[in-house]
Amino acid sequence: MTVFSDRPAFLATLSDVPAPCPTSIAEARARQAELTKPAGSLGRLEDIAAFMAGWQRTARPKADRVQAVVFAGNHGVTARGVSAFPPEVTAQMVANFRAGGAAINALCRASGADLTVVPLDLDRPTGDITIEPAMTEEACLAALNAGAEAVGGDSQLLFVGEMGIGNTTPAAALCAATFGGDAALWCGHGTGIDDRGFARKREAVDQALALHRPFCSDPLETLRRLGGREIAAMAGAILAARRLRIPVLLDGFIACASIAPLSAAYPGLTDHCLAAHCSAEAAHARLLDALGLEPLLRLGLRLGEGTGAALAVPIVKAALAAHDEMATFAEAAVATA
Amino acid sequence: MTVFSDRPAFLATLSDVPAPCPTSIAEARARQAELTKPAGSLGRLEDIAAFMAGWQRTARPKADRVQAVVFAGNHGVTARGVSAFPPEVTAQMVANFRAGGAAINALCRASGADLTVVPLDLDRPTGDITIEPAMTEEACLAALNAGAEAVGGDSQLLFVGEMGIGNTTPAAALCAATFGGDAALWCGHGTGIDDRGFARKREAVDQALALHRPFCSDPLETLRRLGGREIAAMAGAILAARRLRIPVLLDGFIACASIAPLSAAYPGLTDHCLAAHCSAEAAHARLLDALGLEPLLRLGLRLGEGTGAALAVPIVKAALAAHDEMATFAEAAVATA
Repeated sequence: MTVFSDRPAFLATLSDVPAPCPTSIAEARARQAELTKPAGSLGRLEDIAAFMAGWQRTARPKADRVQAVVFAGNHGVTARGVSAFPPEVTAQMVANFRAGGAAINALCRASGADLTVVPLDLDRPTGDITIEPAMTEEACLAALNAGAEAVGGDSQLLFVGEMGIGNTTPAAALCAATFGGDAALWCGHGTGIDDRGFARKREAVDQALALHRPFCSDPLETLRRLGGREIAAMAGAILAARRLRIPVLLDGFIACASIAPLSAAYPGLTDHCLAAHCSAEAAHARLLDALGLEPLLRLGLRLGEGTGAALAVPIVKAALAAHDEMATFAEAAVATA
Repeated sequence: MTVFSDRPAFLATLSDVPAPCPTSIAEARARQAELTKPAGSLGRLEDIAAFMAGWQRTARPKADRVQAVVFAGNHGVTARGVSAFPPEVTAQMVANFRAGGAAINALCRASGADLTVVPLDLDRPTGDITIEPAMTEEACLAALNAGAEAVGGDSQLLFVGEMGIGNTTPAAALCAATFGGDAALWCGHGTGIDDRGFARKREAVDQALALHRPFCSDPLETLRRLGGREIAAMAGAILAARRLRIPVLLDGFIACASIAPLSAAYPGLTDHCLAAHCSAEAAHARLLDALGLEPLLRLGLRLGEGTGAALAVPIVKAALAAHDEMATFAEAAVATA
C-alpha cells in the first residue's frame, strides 16, 4: 500500500493527523485518583498511562503487542571517511539481526517486542551529500512508504531503529538544516570515530549544509537532500503510526533526527511519541530539547538499532500494569488521606 | 536463623564482608569487547553486567530469580501529625499487598520478581522519636534479623521495599544524624503532606535530633534510636545479601536511609548495591550523592513499596540478556572498526 503517493499527498498528510481522545485521558486520570497510592506518586508512570489511553482511546490501554522495526540503509557519504566502521558492516549487521545475534534481538526478546528487519537497497548507497542530494524525490517517497508499510495496524506500541554505517553524519546535517547551527553543534563521535575522522565528519556536514541549505524549503526536500533511506523509512513509519493512532517510543539520535524536519514544520506532529532515552551521542540531548521531549531513560547508550527504545518498553508495560491491575481505595478498604 | 546475635556480632559483621570477584569482572569485560557493537556503546548496561558478574562470580551472570521483600512497620512519631495518611493504612496496605492489589504487586508481576511481605509487629508502633528511642537494642536486632532471614540464598537479585505510615520522618532523622544537617535539609513532603503538616514533620525531626544525636555513636545506636522496624529490617536484608554475595537494587529514600548509617561508618559496605532510581522525595537526590550512588532511573516516583527498584529489574535483565545472548564479531562475521 502506497501511503505517500507524491509530494502534495505527503505534505497534505502532515497537516491532517488524528488527535488523542480527551475523554479517555480524563477517564484514565480519574481512575488513577482512585488507586491505592498517594495522588501522583507513580510520577511519569501515570503520565505514560494517560498518554497511552489517549492514543488507544480507552481508559485501560494495553502494550501486549509491541512492534519493533529496524530499517537499514547505506550512505554515499561514507566515502568521506566519516565512520569508524566500513560500510559493509551494514549488510553484515542485517544478517546478524536475522540470525538473532545483535543487541536489539536480545533486548526485543527481553521486552517482548516483535522485531522485523527491513533493509533498503543496501547495494545502492544514497548520494554523497557533500556533493549531491542523498536521494531523488521518488527514492525518498519510496523509503517513506517502505517505512509506512512496515507498521502493523494492530500494534499497540511501536518503535523503530536503524542500522546504517555513517548515518550520524546525515542525521547531524538534518538537525542543522532544521534547527540551525553548524556541524560543530550537531556532530558527535557516532560509533566511536577518532579525532581525525571526527574532523572529516564535521567537514562533510558543513559541506553538505553549504550545498543544500538554500534548497531546504520544506521537510520533504530537507529529508531527501540530507537524509538516507533508513532515515526516511523511520519517518514514514512514525507518521503512519500517527495516522493509525499507534503510540511510538522514539529511539536515539537518528530516530529523532528523522522526524526533526517534519516536527519543526508541523508542531504537534509527533505528539504520539515518547522519547525513550537520551543517548551518549553528544547532540541527542540538544535535539530532544529542540523537539520538546523529556527522555524516559539516560543510560549512556549510543548503539542505535532501537536499543534505547527497547529498554523503555518494560517501563511502559509496568506503567500500564499498575494502571490496570491496582485496586482502588474502595476495593481494598484502605483509608484515604 | 539469627544472623546478628548481639551488638558485637552485628558490628563485627560490618567489617567482614565478601568482595566481588575481579576475575569474573575481567572476563565479562573481555566478552563485551567481542560482542557485535561499538566498544562501550551499551553504556550503563555494560557496567551492570560487569557488576553482576563480580557478585555472582561468573562471566555470564543471570537475573532469573529476582526476590522482592516488602517490610512493614508502624511508627510512634505519627502521633505528631507527620503524615498525610492515618497509621491504620500500614496494616490496610499489607492486606492489599497480600491480595495483590498494590502498585508493587503489579510491578513485580510485570518484572518477574517474586514478592514476599513481612509485617513487623504492626500493633506495636516504635517509640515516638521526639521523646524516646524508636526501639530497644533488642528490638532493633530482632528487626535486623527478620530482614536477614527473609533473604533467600538462591536469589540472583534482591530488592527490598517498605510500607510504614510516617516513615519518611525517621528516614530524614537517620540521614541528618549520619551526614549532618537539620530537618530542613532532609525532610520532604512524603506521601503528600500539606504545609502545616510539613512544619510539624520538620519540628519532629529537629526534636528527635536534639534528643538522640549525642548518643549516635555507632550505626546500630543510630538505627535503633531514629529508625523503625521495617527500616532496620531493610538494612538487615541488604547486609545479609552482601554476606550471600547477592546483588541488590536499592529502592527510594527509605531504603537508602536504612543503610546510610552503616554505609557511612563502613565505606564499601554497599558496593553490592545499585541505586534503582531517584525519587521525587526532595532529599533522595542528596542522599544518593552522599552515598556515592548514581541512580538508573529518574521517573518522579515517590510511592515506596519497592516500586522504583521493581522498575529497574527489567533494565538489569536486559543488560544481562544482551551480555549473554549477543553474537561476537567472529561468530557473526561482522567487520570490526
